[in-house]
Amino acid sequence: MIESPIEWRENSVDVLDQLKLPNEEIWVNCGTHEQVGETISNMLIRGAPAIGIAAAYGLALFVKNYVLNKGSRDKFKTAFDEASDYMAKTRPTAVNLFWAIDRIKSVAIGQFDMGIKLNKIAANVVTEAIFIHKDDLARCKQIGEYGARMVSKPTTFLTHCNAGLLATGGYGTALGVIRSCHKKGLLKQVYASETRPYLQGARLTSWELMQDKIPTTLITDNMAGYMFSQGKIDAVVVGADRIAANGDVANKIGTYTLAVLADFHGVPFYVAAPISTFDLECSYGSDIKIEQRSKEELVNIYGKQIAPIDVQVENPAFDVTPNNLVSAIITELGVIDRPNEEKIVEHVKG
Amino acid sequence: MIESPIEWRENSVDVLDQLKLPNEEIWVNCGTHEQVGETISNMLIRGAPAIGIAAAYGLALFVKNYVLNKGSRDKFKTAFDEASDYMAKTRPTAVNLFWAIDRIKSVAIGQFDMGIKLNKIAANVVTEAIFIHKDDLARCKQIGEYGARMVSKPTTFLTHCNAGLLATGGYGTALGVIRSCHKKGLLKQVYASETRPYLQGARLTSWELMQDKIPTTLITDNMAGYMFSQGKIDAVVVGADRIAANGDVANKIGTYTLAVLADFHGVPFYVAAPISTFDLECSYGSDIKIEQRSKEELVNIYGKQIAPIDVQVENPAFDVTPNNLVSAIITELGVIDRPNEEKIVEHVKG
Repeated sequence: MIESPIEWRENSVDVLDQLKLPNEEIWVNCGTHEQVGETISNMLIRGAPAIGIAAAYGLALFVKNYVLNKGSRDKFKTAFDEASDYMAKTRPTAVNLFWAIDRIKSVAIGQFDMGIKLNKIAANVVTEAIFIHKDDLARCKQIGEYGARMVSKPTTFLTHCNAGLLATGGYGTALGVIRSCHKKGLLKQVYASETRPYLQGARLTSWELMQDKIPTTLITDNMAGYMFSQGKIDAVVVGADRIAANGDVANKIGTYTLAVLADFHGVPFYVAAPISTFDLECSYGSDIKIEQRSKEELVNIYGKQIAPIDVQVENPAFDVTPNNLVSAIITELGVIDRPNEEKIVEHVKG
Repeated sequence: MIESPIEWRENSVDVLDQLKLPNEEIWVNCGTHEQVGETISNMLIRGAPAIGIAAAYGLALFVKNYVLNKGSRDKFKTAFDEASDYMAKTRPTAVNLFWAIDRIKSVAIGQFDMGIKLNKIAANVVTEAIFIHKDDLARCKQIGEYGARMVSKPTTFLTHCNAGLLATGGYGTALGVIRSCHKKGLLKQVYASETRPYLQGARLTSWELMQDKIPTTLITDNMAGYMFSQGKIDAVVVGADRIAANGDVANKIGTYTLAVLADFHGVPFYVAAPISTFDLECSYGSDIKIEQRSKEELVNIYGKQIAPIDVQVENPAFDVTPNNLVSAIITELGVIDRPNEEKIVEHVKG
């Protein structure tokens, strides 16, 4: 049973190779920041919070190795900048990556400018990286706790994609709510939709929940309606990639379909996400640009062609669920019922 | 460009191997009823009407070969019964299979009992099999014609699974409506949902429509909601496996999800099917038993394991769309708007 997709090992970090799941559980030991960077760029680790944590550990390793290799004080700033530039290029669209790099940089360069010794700086960046990791884990547990408080009897949840420990510092957001319910005897079972085209539900969520012995039933995405019609689903809980100021939620493609089904069947639809997911600069979900991904993901599955090679496709990576279909947003600070801009600003800015 | 998934060749039949689509277009030439039976049991040919036609041609081949091999008149009835029993076992749950076998049997055995010569009977069963084929094609074209009359401006359709020429004697039911619209300049484009787990939309519908140069966009099943939300879909048209007396429609899993989405977005939802699809003995959709298929279809794709081997799954092959979500049923006799039992009985029984 794993707690986190990444583990600090003093002079290295272990990263779980999620590309090999669910068939094999293989941890890749990284002794250098370049090795950590490769696990990000090759997508052995995925999920915005998890990527940020990996980048922080990678830069901590860089500073530790610089000291071990007796690098000169003169060249430290240049070398650190090179290392952080390298790390920033591993997944150039991941916001959490830049945020984590900036946090490590402010410690490393800030303390350097104050004249603090390199070996002390090395110890402090390691502490900062571990803090980023533990802080994310703590926020997920708090989300889980607030989510479970909304549930009063054993509940069957439907979830989509993987908003679990594999995508975060541990515990997960949507799956954090499910874990907390499970611990309190408030979970009947989980339906995991397989989440085409990338199959995160089949490959990752099923595996992750089964590790924790949480009763899980895998379905294809198009079976969700049937399960609702049979009264099998009591609530939907999903994560979020970005939440607009008015509460519109961008999340993995397929989320909106589930929100419509939940509304039609009178089932609550919950979004679980840390407050860092809110983008208050973005007023409405319609302002969020939807990334279109490659045709390959639809036409090939594991190298086997399943459609005419010259067929036209659309492959949006995300969709937007409007706030009127969101029953509540669960964050580490509490619950926003029937979210709107006023409630969100109050919640985030206090 | 093909017209039908099966073609009579005087002393043999050619069956298109749909398992090899869309990668290869391979026709299997069958000279015996056993060879035709194998194309059914191994699912080279699928779709209820197409299976019935194949069985009819298979038995026609049996009688032709019996005559060619100078089989005795004495043993004809026993030999024919053996051949039809063999054919009946190729897909034991396919209603059209039994119906087609009975039709050929009534000609073969009926004429035998009247003392008609075997070589004349052979010619008549061939004629009957060809009639079954052409009759199905004609009904599909009539469905297409009635469907197209409902459309007044260029329309974007969403369809699911494959209710096309590949599943029928030719032209298709849902895809027949789309073909007729296309011919009349009333088709903007088609969205084909891939239809997990068996991928009939990706493998078959995309291929079939592209053969006819009908503009087609492939999406994963979970993208349907997003396409509706963007106003990209003007109407849904699907086939049916069975329609209850009250108009509840059993069709490929995922159909109900699309019906809910159509309702939510105020988009019409059409079902195109021949009147043989109505089961007036079945009062409500809830009386239709939903076949649960194997776990393998969800956990493996082309031999690659995509989920934990011991995960629990549900794999219903069909779902039921209640009549209140069905805008109209289009048959070869016309259109039933907002179907209910009274309208259906009137439509079918005149």
